[in-house]
Amino acid sequence: MATVPLLSDEEAGPRARAVFEAIREARGTDYVNNFWRALAHDEAALEETWARLSRLMGPGALDPLVKELIYIAVSTANGCSYCVHSHTAAAKAKGMTPEMHAELVATIAMANQTNAQVTALQVPVDDRFDEA
Amino acid sequence: MATVPLLSDEEAGPRARAVFEAIREARGTDYVNNFWRALAHDEAALEETWARLSRLMGPGALDPLVKELIYIAVSTANGCSYCVHSHTAAAKAKGMTPEMHAELVATIAMANQTNAQVTALQVPVDDRFDEA
Amino acid sequence: MATVPLLSDEEAGPRARAVFEAIREARGTDYVNNFWRALAHDEAALEETWARLSRLMGPGALDPLVKELIYIAVSTANGCSYCVHSHTAAAKAKGMTPEMHAELVATIAMANQTNAQVTALQVPVDDRFDEA
Amino acid sequence: MATVPLLSDEEAGPRARAVFEAIREARGTDYVNNFWRALAHDEAALEETWARLSRLMGPGALDPLVKELIYIAVSTANGCSYCVHSHTAAAKAKGMTPEMHAELVATIAMANQTNAQVTALQVPVDDRFDEA
Amino acid sequence: MATVPLLSDEEAGPRARAVFEAIREARGTDYVNNFWRALAHDEAALEETWARLSRLMGPGALDPLVKELIYIAVSTANGCSYCVHSHTAAAKAKGMTPEMHAELVATIAMANQTNAQVTALQVPVDDRFDEA
Amino acid sequence: MATVPLLSDEEAGPRARAVFEAIREARGTDYVNNFWRALAHDEAALEETWARLSRLMGPGALDPLVKELIYIAVSTANGCSYCVHSHTAAAKAKGMTPEMHAELVATIAMANQTNAQVTALQVPVDDRFDEA
Repeated sequence: MATVPLLSDEEAGPRARAVFEAIREARGTDYVNNFWRALAHDEAALEETWARLSRLMGPGALDPLVKELIYIAVSTANGCSYCVHSHTAAAKAKGMTPEMHAELVATIAMANQTNAQVTALQVPVDDRFDEA
Repeated sequence: MATVPLLSDEEAGPRARAVFEAIREARGTDYVNNFWRALAHDEAALEETWARLSRLMGPGALDPLVKELIYIAVSTANGCSYCVHSHTAAAKAKGMTPEMHAELVATIAMANQTNAQVTALQVPVDDRFDEA
Repeated sequence: MATVPLLSDEEAGPRARAVFEAIREARGTDYVNNFWRALAHDEAALEETWARLSRLMGPGALDPLVKELIYIAVSTANGCSYCVHSHTAAAKAKGMTPEMHAELVATIAMANQTNAQVTALQVPVDDRFDEA
Repeated sequence: MATVPLLSDEEAGPRARAVFEAIREARGTDYVNNFWRALAHDEAALEETWARLSRLMGPGALDPLVKELIYIAVSTANGCSYCVHSHTAAAKAKGMTPEMHAELVATIAMANQTNAQVTALQVPVDDRFDEA
Repeated sequence: MATVPLLSDEEAGPRARAVFEAIREARGTDYVNNFWRALAHDEAALEETWARLSRLMGPGALDPLVKELIYIAVSTANGCSYCVHSHTAAAKAKGMTPEMHAELVATIAMANQTNAQVTALQVPVDDRFDEA
Repeated sequence: MATVPLLSDEEAGPRARAVFEAIREARGTDYVNNFWRALAHDEAALEETWARLSRLMGPGALDPLVKELIYIAVSTANGCSYCVHSHTAAAKAKGMTPEMHAELVATIAMANQTNAQVTALQVPVDDRFDEA
């Protein structure tokens, strides 16, 4: 299921094909996953998203693997099935062990639990947490 | 605003007071934040939540600071204002620098963006992402 | 804060004032809460919402108090602060005890936890759960 | 998968069948989509939902196509796969071009990004935005 | 699809197998559903989750069936497809009639509607709803 | 409340100040709202966000006002209070009438209602909605 066709290399426009090539080179694989093939209908969005994502997810103030874990956490909270799948695969490729995966899931689950307790009780923010 | 009164040390039951003391000892501060004072109406939940949270957020397969970043990511996606505030303070106390904070926010924001693109386009999960 | 003014009885149109009177009569109080005063800019929506809500939340296949608990659960999951506050007040008025409130919060929290575990692990639905 | 059987014309009750006929007439097609067949177990809800939806989504202060775009935006933010699919089909039927679709997706994605930045930073509402 | 393999009895560790047996005994069936088989990679989480869930969902201040309805409400608001399916099956097993199911869905739907109205209008919480 | 200080013109770095000036010029007002002052800690994110947002929200395949309505819809579904306030103000500045606002709220509310009905019933996507 999808709301747009997934574009093959042949169907994609020249700017989209160039992004497909950049993805292949960066990842060292011929495979281009469905997200990019769906986004390829909007070549400007495809270019912008790939450029920003590949820059952000590389080395920086946070480790690339840590950023994949954060991505999984957000994707889980948003209920984005595709995103949970693709970023779990990416995290494994970057070194996530089964023990780290289990602890990630436990942390996401605990955060969802205490978020719900806080929201159900409507706990007011402590003054000392304010930085404004 | 809250849907239950925040219990002072005097108003809390004996089991709740014992948790308050454990929190003070673990954190090296006299301050007990509002979440625990709201949860203190349900002493069993207070005990269980504190025990599990303090065990989970300590050293493990993931670094304690990384787990705070994950907590902030989930809390942001869930729109839990109190939780974003309290875990941002906790992350700073565990060493989060302004540069790490900025990169965390950028990662959360990018994940929300691509989650939305995926969901709007209803991208089907690639077979290779399946582990079942 | 609000994105529209809250209409007083004097500022509201005649159809809105009639709904305000119906609310007063149904609840046996002179107080009309802010939700209805904000919605009063759209008199048709105000009438429709009050009519449907008051019919739905009365006796039926489910007890009125149970329906308030369900309302709190949804409002918590959606992070609607106003709604959690107003329906917690309504549930108390219909007989929710502190013990019931604590168990409601624990159930909402547990559901958020296991929802997150399921979503992070992307558990496939068992065939036997399908009714289609 | 579904939590209730989808009712065929033969299985549906008389009030549900009347709604099916109204849908067919309004849309000029014999096809009744799954949502209505699932909702048909609750004939009152089916009638009320169809009546309100068909009135709301027709001409008004906003163009019918604009309202479909809003529906897609909400459905995406809520992660409702069925709803994204059905309202994207409806928007196309009402004239949504590929360029409009791409710009809609870009707007939804950008809104999710800045929503996340705001929530992670807990930006306080400017006084001038208050209308209450 | 899943991000971890579902463990059979043979593949699961001894602590996981013991939980599988407890599930079978509590439910009077040989069948262990996918959630537990996915969670079995983290035996501590599996034990803790089953222990807390089975205690919480039993008799208490709220009826077991009411707690299943609350679970369905939260799972729906979170868009957790698996959870909606599994808890709808559990609610039926505990006595939920088609009439109760229809009224549950109507209540969840109405709550989502009024939550959205409140949030779009940013209605401020009435002072009288505050318990802090 | 905020998790970072809101930077004044004096406190902001040179790249942030340049964005503040661009905002002032584009809007014809001296006022820079809190979102940009909070984001100014990350000058690259500030520049990127302003550049992309101002380009996207201008004329295109969709009318600028329509894009503000979409922004309000997403912000409401995400429960982002700041975002609902700021984009409602922006929509009014671009010509949203009270009648359009009321119809927008009604559409968002109806979408949340039917999203919930679909999710609670787990309606399977009709084959004809698939474009992949």
